[in-house]
Amino acid sequence: MVEGVHFKLEWCKPQDLGARSLAVNLSDIAAMGGVPTACVVNLAVRPGLGVVFFDRLYAGLVKEAEAAGADVIGGNVTRGSQLTVTITVLGEARRGILRRDSARVGDAVYVSGTVGDAAAGLRILQGELRASGATRRFLVGRFLRPTARLEAGRKLAQLRPLPAAIDLSDGLWQDLGHILERSGVGAEIDPIAIPLSPAYRKLVGGDPTLALRGGDDYELLFCVRTRFSELALSRRLGVPVHRIGRIVRGSHAVLTGDGSSRRNARSDFAGWDQLRQLSEAK
Amino acid sequence: MVEGVHFKLEWCKPQDLGARSLAVNLSDIAAMGGVPTACVVNLAVRPGLGVVFFDRLYAGLVKEAEAAGADVIGGNVTRGSQLTVTITVLGEARRGILRRDSARVGDAVYVSGTVGDAAAGLRILQGELRASGATRRFLVGRFLRPTARLEAGRKLAQLRPLPAAIDLSDGLWQDLGHILERSGVGAEIDPIAIPLSPAYRKLVGGDPTLALRGGDDYELLFCVRTRFSELALSRRLGVPVHRIGRIVRGSHAVLTGDGSSRRNARSDFAGWDQLRQLSEAK
Repeated sequence: MVEGVHFKLEWCKPQDLGARSLAVNLSDIAAMGGVPTACVVNLAVRPGLGVVFFDRLYAGLVKEAEAAGADVIGGNVTRGSQLTVTITVLGEARRGILRRDSARVGDAVYVSGTVGDAAAGLRILQGELRASGATRRFLVGRFLRPTARLEAGRKLAQLRPLPAAIDLSDGLWQDLGHILERSGVGAEIDPIAIPLSPAYRKLVGGDPTLALRGGDDYELLFCVRTRFSELALSRRLGVPVHRIGRIVRGSHAVLTGDGSSRRNARSDFAGWDQLRQLSEAK
Repeated sequence: MVEGVHFKLEWCKPQDLGARSLAVNLSDIAAMGGVPTACVVNLAVRPGLGVVFFDRLYAGLVKEAEAAGADVIGGNVTRGSQLTVTITVLGEARRGILRRDSARVGDAVYVSGTVGDAAAGLRILQGELRASGATRRFLVGRFLRPTARLEAGRKLAQLRPLPAAIDLSDGLWQDLGHILERSGVGAEIDPIAIPLSPAYRKLVGGDPTLALRGGDDYELLFCVRTRFSELALSRRLGVPVHRIGRIVRGSHAVLTGDGSSRRNARSDFAGWDQLRQLSEAK
């Protein structure tokens, strides 16, 4: 996490920065179905930041580590021109490792939680979207304090056959692409099925473009054999999950529905053309 | 390793930068008597550096990893304003772990190789010292391409009682201080016994001040029970080692000899007063 690239200090408290720096790394462990055990922290510090700042950053980081059951076992501090937090998290996979290359034709594609909130929150922080009150707090909070889906990842790793999984850091469309590329398959995604939060709907509307393109949600995207209902799988994983499509033969993702057969869908959001371009560009 | 803080690109080939970035981390494993197994590489890349540069940097890094028996198992690339290479190395300790807190009164203090070469090399690169030919090549090479003393560390970890050890990254005097602080002991160091290379002597003379203060040698400093000759211990560890002093009661290091009882020593270098200040400041 690099100041000016991934965050600005005026966006958040040092504690939040510490916690987020670790959470985005814990998310990678979650996406593999692992149990985090230890982390190593490298700080590049720039002039102008004092001891109090780093005490708070570290406190937020340690609190997040403790909640995840991981120890901060070491690290390094160096000088730099940008504040940079680099973390390596170690974890163990006890029941099997979720991979990106194991999606199979016929699998159902799911995502945990809701998607697009962090992208909307980032745009609020950047002044590109305007929101206030609870809507702003929720969306900005989803960007600043993501939750690594560790428990859901562990539960996924108990399923057989092992699901393919990835965490949503770059954005749903791009991260799905990583799974498809590694697995040598395609996917059909129903944009209407993308789970959007009430806050997202209030600010952005029903258009899932931002949810498909925006990153930083740190939800899990996974591909499982279709033997669960959404409700049953949500209960099993301890987090709401939604089925957004399926794995098919091919090499990339396409959006299902064309706006003619699904008029309701078309009227529901304005970004269909943009989505189609996204789909065709892939 | 941060561009502009730890290195300048005009100093070295990208391959050397990659190799050095890993070597300085392998050195920490060596100082614990460990066997490196895997490493994770984080690159912050700045504008102006192309694919060829990173291919070469990575090639140097991978070659160094292979030589040490470690796998590059993952990493991350991000943008930044300074080229930064952050590496976490994982290792295993099979026979026992060398620590900094286990030096005991009566131990002999040793260093591997020669000390101060890298500091002299850095000053040549920075234009503060002038050298040419083989002298320059040797000293600059010692800075740019340090060798992690992995084999010596492993062999040290077979001794009983386990020696205290540290690698020389900050400088002999400062790194010795880390051992003394952690172990709750003091040390007497004989400046005349500090092993200086012919190139160091040619450029700097017999004054060990730079060797005591300068860092980046990545040699091992260790404290062992005095039952070996220098020669026997050198053979056992596979690298020349020299006894430079002993662990005593106290809480910091002092330099032995006062320049009156050891006239030859005094005339051998000009920096005695500076050394004394160093000693008293600690």
